[in-house]
Amino acid sequence: MKIIIVGGSFSGIYCAIKVKELYPSFEVLLIEKKEKIGYIPSGLSMLLNGEIRSLDEAYFMTKEELEKSGVTVLTSTEVTSYNLSSKVIETTNGTKQFDKLVLATGSSQKSSKMFDEFSDIKTYKDRESAEITLKALEEVKDVVVIGAGQAGMELASGLIHQGKRVHVIETMDYPLYKYFDKDFLESFYTTTGKIEGLTFYFNETVKQIDDSILLFSSGNTIDITDKLVLSANSVRPELSIFKNQLKANSDHTIFVDDYLETSVQDVYAVGDLIQVPSFIFQTNVYAPLIVNAVQTSMTCAKNIVEKKETLRPMLKTIGVKLFDYYLASTGLMESEDFLYHEEVKSVMMTLPISTVYKKDIKVKLVYDATTYHLLGVQLISKEPVLDKINTFALVIKEKIDIRTLNQLPHFYNAVFANTSLSLFDVFEKGDDSSEV
Amino acid sequence: MKIIIVGGSFSGIYCAIKVKELYPSFEVLLIEKKEKIGYIPSGLSMLLNGEIRSLDEAYFMTKEELEKSGVTVLTSTEVTSYNLSSKVIETTNGTKQFDKLVLATGSSQKSSKMFDEFSDIKTYKDRESAEITLKALEEVKDVVVIGAGQAGMELASGLIHQGKRVHVIETMDYPLYKYFDKDFLESFYTTTGKIEGLTFYFNETVKQIDDSILLFSSGNTIDITDKLVLSANSVRPELSIFKNQLKANSDHTIFVDDYLETSVQDVYAVGDLIQVPSFIFQTNVYAPLIVNAVQTSMTCAKNIVEKKETLRPMLKTIGVKLFDYYLASTGLMESEDFLYHEEVKSVMMTLPISTVYKKDIKVKLVYDATTYHLLGVQLISKEPVLDKINTFALVIKEKIDIRTLNQLPHFYNAVFANTSLSLFDVFEKGDDSSEV
Repeated sequence: MKIIIVGGSFSGIYCAIKVKELYPSFEVLLIEKKEKIGYIPSGLSMLLNGEIRSLDEAYFMTKEELEKSGVTVLTSTEVTSYNLSSKVIETTNGTKQFDKLVLATGSSQKSSKMFDEFSDIKTYKDRESAEITLKALEEVKDVVVIGAGQAGMELASGLIHQGKRVHVIETMDYPLYKYFDKDFLESFYTTTGKIEGLTFYFNETVKQIDDSILLFSSGNTIDITDKLVLSANSVRPELSIFKNQLKANSDHTIFVDDYLETSVQDVYAVGDLIQVPSFIFQTNVYAPLIVNAVQTSMTCAKNIVEKKETLRPMLKTIGVKLFDYYLASTGLMESEDFLYHEEVKSVMMTLPISTVYKKDIKVKLVYDATTYHLLGVQLISKEPVLDKINTFALVIKEKIDIRTLNQLPHFYNAVFANTSLSLFDVFEKGDDSSEV
Repeated sequence: MKIIIVGGSFSGIYCAIKVKELYPSFEVLLIEKKEKIGYIPSGLSMLLNGEIRSLDEAYFMTKEELEKSGVTVLTSTEVTSYNLSSKVIETTNGTKQFDKLVLATGSSQKSSKMFDEFSDIKTYKDRESAEITLKALEEVKDVVVIGAGQAGMELASGLIHQGKRVHVIETMDYPLYKYFDKDFLESFYTTTGKIEGLTFYFNETVKQIDDSILLFSSGNTIDITDKLVLSANSVRPELSIFKNQLKANSDHTIFVDDYLETSVQDVYAVGDLIQVPSFIFQTNVYAPLIVNAVQTSMTCAKNIVEKKETLRPMLKTIGVKLFDYYLASTGLMESEDFLYHEEVKSVMMTLPISTVYKKDIKVKLVYDATTYHLLGVQLISKEPVLDKINTFALVIKEKIDIRTLNQLPHFYNAVFANTSLSLFDVFEKGDDSSEV
C-alpha cells in the first residue's frame, strides 16, 4: 500500500508518523515543496519576541527525525498537478502514483486580492517569507501590521519588543475578536494601546495600497513611505490547483466526511484545508489551529484503511503571550451566543492568582442558562496561567455543571493557587450572576 | 437557629461563610482560640522561601473580612469543655448554647510521644510556634527537620534558602512518599541530596532525643548540640477533649456520616478532623489537605439544616515548589497498587515543556490495565507546571480512557506547549507500555 501525503507541516507530518506507526509495512511518502519540513508558522513572532534566537530554532521536526519513523521524505518538491481519479500526481520530481492520498497543504496568507494589486506586502508564515521580512525590518523604524488577530498581535508584540513603531489595522472594533469578547478585553487593549510606539486603527479596512499611501474604506489613509507593510490577515486554503476535482464548502475549504475522506475515494484532507465539527455548535466550523491540524491528522491516519473512527467535535482553544499578558480562550464567546441553541449567561471576575500572591487573573465564564453547563472561558493575567485553559476546556467537554466547579479535584497551595471559592460560589447564590 | 463553629482555619472559616450565605437569618458564631483567625499553616515555609516578607502576610482571611459576611467571630477564646448532648460548650469567654455545632479544630503536630519527653522540639503550624521557631533560627546554623513529607521538605527548602545547614530525617527510604513513587523521585532526591548543606537521613526513625543527642531506632545518632530540632511529622486530630462523646475511627479521626454529621445529632465535623471518601479506593481515607478542608466545609454547610448532598469522593491532589523544582501529584501511586481492586500499569516519560523551549517535564501516569482509565499522575519540572495537575485530576475524575488523551481539547503554542503526541501516543501502540 502506497500512501502519499502532500505537505510537511503539522498535519502532514503527524499523519505520516501515525500511518507508519499503525501500518509499518505501508510505503509512506511525504512531499514538501520547501527545502525543509516542520517550520513553525509563528517562527518570526517567536524570534522578534525573543523566545528563540534564530529561525533555525523554529522547526518542530526535521527530515532526519521524520525519516527515523520509516517515512520517506521528498523536500523541494512541488506538486504541479493532481489527477485524483487516476491516482496520479505530477511533481517537480516526477510522476507519483498512490493508493491513498492525504492532502495536508495547509492554508495560505496569499488569499486576498490585496496581494495581486500591491506586491510589496510582506508575510511571515513560511521560512522564506519570514527571512525576507526579517531583512526588510532592518531598514525601517515603522511597521504596519494588517490584522489584529492572534498572528497580527503576536507580530505587533514582537515588533514593539524590537523597538519598532507599530501600526495595527483591524476591521473589527477591538483585537482578537475570534477568541475574546470586547468587554473582557477592554482593559487589555486600552492599556496596550498606550504602549509607546503602538497605534491601533480599529474599524478600518484596507481598500487600496500603493507605494506611498494605504487607503482605508473609510477614506482615512496612512502614509506608508518608509514603512514596512506586513499582512497578518486570516488564512484560507488555496484550492485552485485541484481544478474542481474536489467538492468544496462554501467557505472554500475542502469537503470531507466524518472520516476525513474527500469527495474522491481514497483521497483525504486534513488540517487547515478542512472544517471541523464544533463541540459547541451543531455544525462544522473553520478553525485553522495547530491542535486541530494534529487531531485531524491522527484521525485520518486511523481511517486510512477502513473507516473506524469519526472526527471528534472540537473546541477552539488558544493560549498566547502578548506584550506582558498571558491570554487564553476556549469554547463559546458571549458575542457568539446567537449561534447557540439555548440561552447563554456569563460571569466575569478578577481574582488573585493565589492566596499570598496578589497578582490578578481575570476570568470570564460563559454558560448555558438552563443546564449551567460551562460553554466558554476567557482568561487574562500577567502571570503564566495558560495551562488553566486546558482544565476549563475539559470541564466544557465533560458538560460539568458550573455550580459544582468548586467540588472538582484540584491542588491548593497558598503560593500557587487560591481556594477558588470566590470564583465558583457565584453560581450557588441563585442571583442573576450576569450582573456580578 | 444558632450555629457555633469551633476553629478559625480553612474549614471553619469557609463553613461559616457558606452557612451565612445559604441561611442569612442564622446566627453564626465562629470561635478561635488564637488571637487571629486565618493563619496559613505553611506560613513559616513561605517566609523562609522568600514567598512572603513577614508572617503578617501568612493569613488568608482576617476577622474583619469574615465579619463582613455577617459571621460573629470570637478570637482568643478556647473551648474548655464540650457537653454535646446538652448542646452546650464552655469557653474561656463563658458558656455558649448551640442548635448546631461544627467542629473544625483541625489537626495538630503535638500528637507524638516525642513531645512529651523532649520539650525543645520546635513546630511551625500556628503563628505563635512559627514566631518562636523563627527567633530560635537566628541563633543556629544547623537545623534538624523530622519528616520528609510535604511540610518537612518545604521547611528544608526554605532553610537552605536561608543559608542553614539542614538535616532531614525520614522513616521511609525517600521523601514525599505519600505523593510520589520512589522511582519517579529518584533523580530529584539524588540531586537535592547533593545540595550544599542538605543531608538526608532515610530509613531512620527518631527513638529518643535529649539535650545533646538524637538517637535513632537503628542505633545511629546525631549530635544536636547547637542544632535546632524542628518537627514536621504527620498530623492527627486531638480528640481527648471530647471525652468519648463522639464515635471515632481507628485512626483517631472523628467518625462522620456521608453528610458530615458525627455520631451525635446536630454535631458536625469537617476538615482535618475526619476521613474523606476516596475516589480511587472504595473506602474512606485520612487526607488532611486544605482543599479537602474547604470541600468538606462547603458540603457540611449545605447539610446543616437538612441532609441534602453527600460528600463527593476526593482525590489527594498536591502541588508544591521545593528547591528549584515544581512537583505535583494526584490520585493513585503505583506503590499503592495493592490497594486498588484491579491490575494497575504505569508509564513514565520525560518531555520538553514546549516545542521550542527544551526544559523538561517528567510525567508518570498510573492507569487501570483493563479499562485504561487514568488513576494517578506525578509531575516534576523546573518550570511552573503545577496547573497541569488539575487537568489530569479531572481526567481521572471523569474516567477518561488514556488512549484518547490526545483527542482532549487543549491549546497549542510552540512556546508554551507541546503537541502532547509523544506523551499520549504511547497508549495506542498496543505495547507493554510499562516498559517505556
